[in-house]
Amino acid sequence: MAGAFAFKGCQKIRGAQIRVLLEAKEFFLFDCDGVIWHGENAITGAAKVVNALIRRGKNVVFVTNNSTRPRENYVNKFTRLGFTDVMLDQIFSSSYCSALYLRDVVKVRGQVFVIGCEGLRTELLEAGIPCVEEEEDDPDATIYNCALAPDVKAVLVGHDDKLTFLKLAKASCYLRDPECLFLATDNDPWHPLSGGRILPGSGSLTAALEVASGRKATVIGKPSRFMFECISSQFSGVDPAQCLMVGDRLETDMLFGSNCGLDTMLTLTGVSQIEEAQEYRSSDLTTNHSYVPDYVVDTIADFLPAFEEIEEQND
Amino acid sequence: MAGAFAFKGCQKIRGAQIRVLLEAKEFFLFDCDGVIWHGENAITGAAKVVNALIRRGKNVVFVTNNSTRPRENYVNKFTRLGFTDVMLDQIFSSSYCSALYLRDVVKVRGQVFVIGCEGLRTELLEAGIPCVEEEEDDPDATIYNCALAPDVKAVLVGHDDKLTFLKLAKASCYLRDPECLFLATDNDPWHPLSGGRILPGSGSLTAALEVASGRKATVIGKPSRFMFECISSQFSGVDPAQCLMVGDRLETDMLFGSNCGLDTMLTLTGVSQIEEAQEYRSSDLTTNHSYVPDYVVDTIADFLPAFEEIEEQND
Repeated sequence: MAGAFAFKGCQKIRGAQIRVLLEAKEFFLFDCDGVIWHGENAITGAAKVVNALIRRGKNVVFVTNNSTRPRENYVNKFTRLGFTDVMLDQIFSSSYCSALYLRDVVKVRGQVFVIGCEGLRTELLEAGIPCVEEEEDDPDATIYNCALAPDVKAVLVGHDDKLTFLKLAKASCYLRDPECLFLATDNDPWHPLSGGRILPGSGSLTAALEVASGRKATVIGKPSRFMFECISSQFSGVDPAQCLMVGDRLETDMLFGSNCGLDTMLTLTGVSQIEEAQEYRSSDLTTNHSYVPDYVVDTIADFLPAFEEIEEQND
Repeated sequence: MAGAFAFKGCQKIRGAQIRVLLEAKEFFLFDCDGVIWHGENAITGAAKVVNALIRRGKNVVFVTNNSTRPRENYVNKFTRLGFTDVMLDQIFSSSYCSALYLRDVVKVRGQVFVIGCEGLRTELLEAGIPCVEEEEDDPDATIYNCALAPDVKAVLVGHDDKLTFLKLAKASCYLRDPECLFLATDNDPWHPLSGGRILPGSGSLTAALEVASGRKATVIGKPSRFMFECISSQFSGVDPAQCLMVGDRLETDMLFGSNCGLDTMLTLTGVSQIEEAQEYRSSDLTTNHSYVPDYVVDTIADFLPAFEEIEEQND
């Protein structure tokens, strides 16, 4: 394979190998949660890594299935956590890409019914896409008596920590119309919280609606290729062979990279463990091989010594 | 096949054929919604049919996946709608059978976390099974800060028109413990409402939780065999060959009958259409044949002329 390194193949790489890889790639795609930060805490060294890549003229983008915040909030968060060089156009969230899909791909004519957080609605409204107004909390409203908007042409499901049965029921009713599109920002099943708790993800809510409607949602976020198409349309000359996708989740990030023809790197600061990757690699089911990373690091802070060596060489 | 009639096989049967069938069977299992009634309206003639079967000494039981009401409410509803001879022990709801399963089969030790209506909790409490108290509606409670009960040994999901994201998140957290059982009252995907609206069913909520937990629920209601085991344990000498399962939903009622070795009858007053049954029959996938009814009627009121003939013969 052109550009393949001897050290490629679901194993931890170190110093010199990392340096060779960083020099070879021009485009770095990072997942955020579990890779760059945990909630409000940056992964130690992550800001240095990102800033160093950008200063070295590498293209860096952030590809996140988190649909709860508009992109502006990401820029603020990056700045707040010490990633001082990150700009709006480097951020590809599933909410932003959902807005692009609705506006530019399917050119939706009509309102969108959103199951999701305020940030998702904000992103759609900024793209000029009308959303069904959320009703006041009327405790007497039920699916038997509530109003349904007449011109809903898409249902979009994202993470929604204010999900109610009524929202689910309304979405099910809208989806009875075969002309009404059914989209999901992402298919993440759950997210880890501290103390061993978990948060059901968009994939969980989407599954509920898929069963109720008897339909399958079109997924915008990773592992779907669409987010890479968004990146390619906004940056010129993106060559998959020169890209590295760095993520913490095999079923999302590694599969996304594989689907888009990118080299993939698993970082062990998030959800997936190296043992799971090795199990996928040993699987007789070849579709499981798409979950296997090309490279593994304990943390992206493992990049730092490589930069120092590069600096020493350049001195 | 012993006891098979020439008119058996996914087709509408009439007068004399119905009479022969009613005489041959000793045990009649009826689904309720879409078979016996629509909401608060009895199917025309259904009360006469049920009363006539009971008066002729046939065993009649009601097998419903509806988990929202305790059995007492069913008795009251039957009486209110003119089914004057129906007693408590004829009613097998998925809530009642869930209570039996928890108490007698798995002998649960600890609390049960219920996603479901008050009627489901009532049924469990009547069987002596402790349920986690529903908290007051604290608008500030989130999965980040809420209390979790320490001794939850089962999560039971039923129809819940007050589902919230927090309930779903709590259930997902409890299911992290592999010792915690995961049960669903039923797997119905949706229910029809008037005006073309639909209601997401337990199957929809269960799917959300299956994705969030990465586990599969044990389903108590139809099409699982367990409800038939409950009936067999409470009535002596139930012979599947002498049973007729009458329902309106191919994927639930017909499959249940097939799973339990019962003859099945589709009535066209509810969800499924005869064309769907014929499609399943023509399918190359033999598992689809389990959805095909042995007999079809427009309504169970089609039984009535048979009773008149029987009466005439007996005169």
